[in-house]
Amino acid sequence: MLVLNREQDLRIAGLGTASPGPQIDNATLGRAMGLGPMWEQWAEAFVGTKYRHLAVDLETGEPRFSLADLGETAGRRALAAAGLEPSDVDVVVMGTAMPDMLMPTTVNVVADRLGIDQVPTYQLQSGCSGAVQALSVAAGLLLSGSHGTALVLGGDVSAKLVDPDMDAAELPPAQLVNLMLFGDGAGALVLTAEPSPGPALRAVFTKLVGLGREPGQTLDWYGASRRFDGPPVSEDYKAIEAAVPEMAAESAEGLLYGLDWKPDELAYILPPQLSGRMTAKIRERMGAPEAREVSCVEETGNNGNALVFFQLARLLPKLAAGDRALGVAIESSKWIKSGFALEATA
Amino acid sequence: MLVLNREQDLRIAGLGTASPGPQIDNATLGRAMGLGPMWEQWAEAFVGTKYRHLAVDLETGEPRFSLADLGETAGRRALAAAGLEPSDVDVVVMGTAMPDMLMPTTVNVVADRLGIDQVPTYQLQSGCSGAVQALSVAAGLLLSGSHGTALVLGGDVSAKLVDPDMDAAELPPAQLVNLMLFGDGAGALVLTAEPSPGPALRAVFTKLVGLGREPGQTLDWYGASRRFDGPPVSEDYKAIEAAVPEMAAESAEGLLYGLDWKPDELAYILPPQLSGRMTAKIRERMGAPEAREVSCVEETGNNGNALVFFQLARLLPKLAAGDRALGVAIESSKWIKSGFALEATA
Repeated sequence: MLVLNREQDLRIAGLGTASPGPQIDNATLGRAMGLGPMWEQWAEAFVGTKYRHLAVDLETGEPRFSLADLGETAGRRALAAAGLEPSDVDVVVMGTAMPDMLMPTTVNVVADRLGIDQVPTYQLQSGCSGAVQALSVAAGLLLSGSHGTALVLGGDVSAKLVDPDMDAAELPPAQLVNLMLFGDGAGALVLTAEPSPGPALRAVFTKLVGLGREPGQTLDWYGASRRFDGPPVSEDYKAIEAAVPEMAAESAEGLLYGLDWKPDELAYILPPQLSGRMTAKIRERMGAPEAREVSCVEETGNNGNALVFFQLARLLPKLAAGDRALGVAIESSKWIKSGFALEATA
Repeated sequence: MLVLNREQDLRIAGLGTASPGPQIDNATLGRAMGLGPMWEQWAEAFVGTKYRHLAVDLETGEPRFSLADLGETAGRRALAAAGLEPSDVDVVVMGTAMPDMLMPTTVNVVADRLGIDQVPTYQLQSGCSGAVQALSVAAGLLLSGSHGTALVLGGDVSAKLVDPDMDAAELPPAQLVNLMLFGDGAGALVLTAEPSPGPALRAVFTKLVGLGREPGQTLDWYGASRRFDGPPVSEDYKAIEAAVPEMAAESAEGLLYGLDWKPDELAYILPPQLSGRMTAKIRERMGAPEAREVSCVEETGNNGNALVFFQLARLLPKLAAGDRALGVAIESSKWIKSGFALEATA
């Protein structure tokens, strides 16, 4: 765990998010997929996600937004919020599970569109803990002294996984869950070692805990058509439901221990955002009952590497001087714990 | 550029590489692809790559090695060379353009197989500068003080891009070049802040220089079969041939300038490894004529994120106390310069 001391003052100087198109509610999604009226109730009761934004056109299945589109918008907003120019950025780090292409990397397309050049750029292949992975890499690079300001991005666009010719009414429940669970989006933040009134990053960590465990989620890619063999996504929801609450609780406890903070000193907690239903369970297991929950998944869907940014977009306007907040993200693919701690100063 | 001062002593404590199967010469590759006798001469004259190792079985087109297989072997060899156990590793960073799957990431599969757990792991989506990107991230994390020893990996397995039903004799020249240009492999090194007799890392940098430039190479992925539309790889060889020698020269000059080293103080130079023919051109353009060239591409093919490790495997046994070496890698996808400097100490 990277615990930052008083000489290591890194601040979140600005934040931005981007969603593709309008909010899509469960009824609209169900109608577009040709699903019956029970769908909506089932979706509410078993998943708890009410809305999502999607990069594909629901009528045609055609992609309307790429991850680069969303990353560019989010990045532009984050820089504007920080009052910075592209030339102020010394390093760019992006996390995604679903880049637009393998090469060029999406981070470099976004940098190009924003006018960022002559700096290092890194794209992490990452799941739901990718935003924290990107934050931790950026923090490490800033602290190593070679950079002053980082643009940290995360997002996912699942358009490539949508088969426009599929018959949703024929899908098994496990794949129906995917339809309603996931959403598309991107987020960005400016992390800086320069003076800023933004909240201070007090700690950040990510930790693989996958030894000998089967993946809870897999996502494959294909390069030559004849190797295509069925849908590339699989999830083990039972394993995820069983493991994530405990992992989230351990992550929060580890942060509190590393920082020597008490649970009742937390003003806010940002729990993992699997789905509305799962997030409620996870929040309960994480303790610190006085800390107010900051969640987004009911409105955004699970947009993977973007989630933490959407939570931060809800958190930052609420933060008052002295407020402490913890964020936790869990990757269920090969099982990664991750989290970070923020503190607003006077 | 990260220039390490005397208090920032990072060492390469061990190195390992892994190649799939035997060396395949041009005649064997041509025969397997049903290409005529002119192929071999054309390959020698225009590309200059004599051998490569491939993860697919040439007879059946079936993959025999995954990137995780090769990464595991390389990682095991690097740890053994360093005399370290998996539990000595504090962070793992891997670069690849062609991960086995999108999730779980290959770095986490490799970590699992090596018995590495409870540490941060990062997988960079990266092209030919990926090994240097991974090295730079590892160096930054070690210098930020939260880690002591990093396992740095890189590799590529192009098996997913091979269409077993293709008719090579029908391919246009640009795709024939790909057939003979690329190879598969992986490498690993141990970078440590602990005392070690290995060479010291004196500087490392990576820099996007893609502003407003078209990609020199693209590599796409597919998730749902009906979106598949032709081969996912494209290259602009003319742009690559025109740009890379100059970019390599600038990279070497930047390192020398940053370190205040003179060209005639270099014992070795590790130029970018596009192909035998291109590497010879690049080496010439890079100056420092007294520095001995360390290349591998004629024997390994262009194995992308693995190349720098194969060059280091040739360099390290030759290094004597006081020897200085520069390595340069160029990514032509969205255009990245990168490089590093090593110095052997008494």
